[in-house]
Amino acid sequence: MSDILRRGRLASVPDEEIIEFTSSMSADKWIFNSDVLVDLAHTVMLKERNVIRAEDCQKILEGLLKIREEGIEKLDHTYEDIHISLESRLIDMVGEDVGGRMHSGRSRNDEVATCIRLTLRDELLLIMEDLINLRNTLIDVASENVDTLMPGFTHLQHAQPTTLAHHLTAHANAIGRDFERTRDCYSRVNMSPLGAAAFASTGFDLDRERTRTLLGFDGIIENSMDAVSSRDFLIETAAVFANLMINLSKMAEELVIWSTSEFAFIELDDRYASTSSIMPQKKNPDTAELLRGKSGVAIGSLMSL
Amino acid sequence: MSDILRRGRLASVPDEEIIEFTSSMSADKWIFNSDVLVDLAHTVMLKERNVIRAEDCQKILEGLLKIREEGIEKLDHTYEDIHISLESRLIDMVGEDVGGRMHSGRSRNDEVATCIRLTLRDELLLIMEDLINLRNTLIDVASENVDTLMPGFTHLQHAQPTTLAHHLTAHANAIGRDFERTRDCYSRVNMSPLGAAAFASTGFDLDRERTRTLLGFDGIIENSMDAVSSRDFLIETAAVFANLMINLSKMAEELVIWSTSEFAFIELDDRYASTSSIMPQKKNPDTAELLRGKSGVAIGSLMSL
Amino acid sequence: MSDILRRGRLASVPDEEIIEFTSSMSADKWIFNSDVLVDLAHTVMLKERNVIRAEDCQKILEGLLKIREEGIEKLDHTYEDIHISLESRLIDMVGEDVGGRMHSGRSRNDEVATCIRLTLRDELLLIMEDLINLRNTLIDVASENVDTLMPGFTHLQHAQPTTLAHHLTAHANAIGRDFERTRDCYSRVNMSPLGAAAFASTGFDLDRERTRTLLGFDGIIENSMDAVSSRDFLIETAAVFANLMINLSKMAEELVIWSTSEFAFIELDDRYASTSSIMPQKKNPDTAELLRGKSGVAIGSLMSL
Amino acid sequence: MSDILRRGRLASVPDEEIIEFTSSMSADKWIFNSDVLVDLAHTVMLKERNVIRAEDCQKILEGLLKIREEGIEKLDHTYEDIHISLESRLIDMVGEDVGGRMHSGRSRNDEVATCIRLTLRDELLLIMEDLINLRNTLIDVASENVDTLMPGFTHLQHAQPTTLAHHLTAHANAIGRDFERTRDCYSRVNMSPLGAAAFASTGFDLDRERTRTLLGFDGIIENSMDAVSSRDFLIETAAVFANLMINLSKMAEELVIWSTSEFAFIELDDRYASTSSIMPQKKNPDTAELLRGKSGVAIGSLMSL
Repeated sequence: MSDILRRGRLASVPDEEIIEFTSSMSADKWIFNSDVLVDLAHTVMLKERNVIRAEDCQKILEGLLKIREEGIEKLDHTYEDIHISLESRLIDMVGEDVGGRMHSGRSRNDEVATCIRLTLRDELLLIMEDLINLRNTLIDVASENVDTLMPGFTHLQHAQPTTLAHHLTAHANAIGRDFERTRDCYSRVNMSPLGAAAFASTGFDLDRERTRTLLGFDGIIENSMDAVSSRDFLIETAAVFANLMINLSKMAEELVIWSTSEFAFIELDDRYASTSSIMPQKKNPDTAELLRGKSGVAIGSLMSL
Repeated sequence: MSDILRRGRLASVPDEEIIEFTSSMSADKWIFNSDVLVDLAHTVMLKERNVIRAEDCQKILEGLLKIREEGIEKLDHTYEDIHISLESRLIDMVGEDVGGRMHSGRSRNDEVATCIRLTLRDELLLIMEDLINLRNTLIDVASENVDTLMPGFTHLQHAQPTTLAHHLTAHANAIGRDFERTRDCYSRVNMSPLGAAAFASTGFDLDRERTRTLLGFDGIIENSMDAVSSRDFLIETAAVFANLMINLSKMAEELVIWSTSEFAFIELDDRYASTSSIMPQKKNPDTAELLRGKSGVAIGSLMSL
Repeated sequence: MSDILRRGRLASVPDEEIIEFTSSMSADKWIFNSDVLVDLAHTVMLKERNVIRAEDCQKILEGLLKIREEGIEKLDHTYEDIHISLESRLIDMVGEDVGGRMHSGRSRNDEVATCIRLTLRDELLLIMEDLINLRNTLIDVASENVDTLMPGFTHLQHAQPTTLAHHLTAHANAIGRDFERTRDCYSRVNMSPLGAAAFASTGFDLDRERTRTLLGFDGIIENSMDAVSSRDFLIETAAVFANLMINLSKMAEELVIWSTSEFAFIELDDRYASTSSIMPQKKNPDTAELLRGKSGVAIGSLMSL
Repeated sequence: MSDILRRGRLASVPDEEIIEFTSSMSADKWIFNSDVLVDLAHTVMLKERNVIRAEDCQKILEGLLKIREEGIEKLDHTYEDIHISLESRLIDMVGEDVGGRMHSGRSRNDEVATCIRLTLRDELLLIMEDLINLRNTLIDVASENVDTLMPGFTHLQHAQPTTLAHHLTAHANAIGRDFERTRDCYSRVNMSPLGAAAFASTGFDLDRERTRTLLGFDGIIENSMDAVSSRDFLIETAAVFANLMINLSKMAEELVIWSTSEFAFIELDDRYASTSSIMPQKKNPDTAELLRGKSGVAIGSLMSL
């Protein structure tokens, strides 16, 4: 491993345990595709600004597309992070004189900030789609049950009669607010830090607006220090997810209680139940229970930030 | 204490420890003013809908204004919560035949949900004002320091030179996003649950739109079950506060480090410092340190929900 | 207010908001009694070591006992913390020449650390007593129900028949482990930091062993820096409480489910139930539900540290 | 996939997404080795109690040793969990008539509880070894620096002079308490749930004491319901780790501050530092910073439980 970063300043080499401790390669799988996109957009912009030559640009782009095709498994996993690993692989393919130019006017700081926002944006979009589907399902089932009477509960005690439709649309409203929160969060996530370099921007004549457009961001984070150091969008995302999971968890808890022998309001579809090796008569609401457990994980993730 | 609630259904009386454990009177100080407002608005609407007579309405409104003037200290604190205590006090003043009508078409469920949202709304407005002021201060100081050079740090190591203005506007941007999050949260908080009763609405012909207007809410939570049972606005508020406190905590940490003898970038104003009984030469950045500590409390509050 | 601390080093006076923000007076109620005990023990030791004269010692002790009798309400609440307030009150009573000697060889750092440990010790002892009582109650009820059959549940689904005794002794075991954890925690809490001064000990010839004995600590924290700066005993205490509250919360959840109309396994005693203004037929398991809610508060407290 | 569990009770098959959601196969890698050990011990005991024949026992043990040799990668990862997957692989090797007997008198409930405790025990032992080493290192460095003067800090302000030895032994004490907490936790983790079956024990004449001895547990969890349902040992472990990480994090923060240009108390060894692509003069305290970050993960894990 010819480390393109350490040669120079640092004399001795970290031992394997330290490399494993400090390496983010396993977590970086999450941003591999985004990293290639960021490299592609940055390279195109560098060429348009005449920082790199057209033929070098072409070689880099071809190399990047090939790396994406090969997948992350083909990268050397002993590097400190995916950015270095990907760049090293590119240099192996197109030579240092060409590949080494891709990172011009960029630091790993703005690169990783851009990758995280790009990937998170896609996840938020998927979540929003799921939330729309869930809300529609709740409303559909409600509309079929406008006349289905059920006891309304407070403190799990029978209180006043109500309908299943009333109950389900309450859940639908909660999911609607989760959608709103996800969308509000999205508007703060989908901003481009690219061009901020380490935090002090760069002497290269970059076109931040161009990479923003190529990568589909809604705006640029103007202040280069803010661009690379802000973490509040991650905390907000985790909080939005935790709130959502608490709402889902309430519905799951309801399904667990409603499917008891004592309540017997519903029978779960076999696909969402499991059974037991020594009690084959059982039908366990595993999926619902796991969902409750996973809400703990979401809350834990929030606290990790 | 002639408990207007328990007489009837429940034969035996809880002992003192249980009353203290279940009573929310001390926490309810926070919503006393809101509770009077909710009572006023509900009473006016009841009269307009002819649920109560004009003369009874007038007596109730006069009683409520007097109770507000006397303050929460005059209420009997042995009651289960402030709503019961306030209603009991009103009945003492205007008689049960009149005072007992105020709660018509209402449950403590929608009453307390309305009080919490009303009070939280005011706090959010105050926070937004503070955030605007803080952001303006940061920008003012930045505009005076466009040419003030300072080392830019990454990992607390000198990295590239920058200006104090660059540094402070990064913070101003973060505070700007905290403002946005508070405002987004506000839009979900400032909705009226009043009229939902226990969760199943009520047979009384209430005018939910009228109380919404009187109390200054932006909209009505249509589904009565959702209106009284949703808690996600509280979790969102706590998450917004936690995120804000983390941003403030970063600034505070910076002030602590910058005011060390080794860094000596700044000297704190005496008003924001304390000293020591056995080391009178010291000037401790207490206010900044406490702020960091209080960010832990905000995160803890989020987890309590 | 003649601030015995600020006069000297700090020229300007903090404004009221800052005083309120930095003051710990309201939280310090919790340690008022401990503070008097620490002052008494420290004064006795100072006299035995001839740091203060016998007649001064007597005046200080009499003053302290009077302050304790008067209670915390009589103290001036505008001071930064209870230690300063208490010392100022003493000086008012016995004069500065005498009262000012009480704090010899001590800092607020070791003073507050000692007060916190002393108070926490008493709370841990109370909790341990409660846990023994709860465990005994569970075992008593179990011993009366060795033959009481009930369905055993997994995933809230009927699994295999079992007895109530089996069920309750499982809870008793959990409470037994909570007791063990509290006791283990106690052994790390009940250590004396007194004599560590600000963190570098002191030139006065103190007898740390003497104050340890007077205050009933099991040992001394030898390293003076560790004595005043360690916080891990607080985190451990909060974690032990959180774990306990989760166990209690599970029992409370069970009571809530078992007292539903559908399960109808138990009927709560009226003393532990509440009812509703518009649904007087209801009997709500409030105490159990509040207990569940308060487990969230315990978890939140852990996160605040 | 011929699912040995579902055939029978449940008619329809879950779709792939549900399988992936409910499967614990990826998490189960952590307990693979423990699962083989539990199977070995249980099988030996079954044979000694004449539940299975000697020749069947031998075949099962040989099969299990071969499975362990092959490693977890050879198992079919489409199963619900590792226990089923491992059992299915065994049945493929030795036939259902023999392999099917291994699980006699056991449920996945006591099996998984035993595996978790076994694996956690090993991790706690490793941690305790690491803590002893760290404490010794701190004491060694301290003993070489008894006369090394340094400023003592409170609030990061110079307070009183002290020695590096004083400072480091304070840390050593904290690590000593972390060791004690880990050891106390160990005593509650290293208890055998095996034999509890689903929660109601079993009609098979098992020898719980025998499997306890074979697996090296310190005792048996007598109550079979408690044995399979208690989670407090996990919460305690996570809390002990979080407390430890906070102590380590404080030391790491110190290293970060001490290695700034302004403090310049220490220079990090190159092996524990990284540099920057566009600022090659830099030497970043990455290892220390990552450690601080990972303390957040430990706290998050605690909240997930």
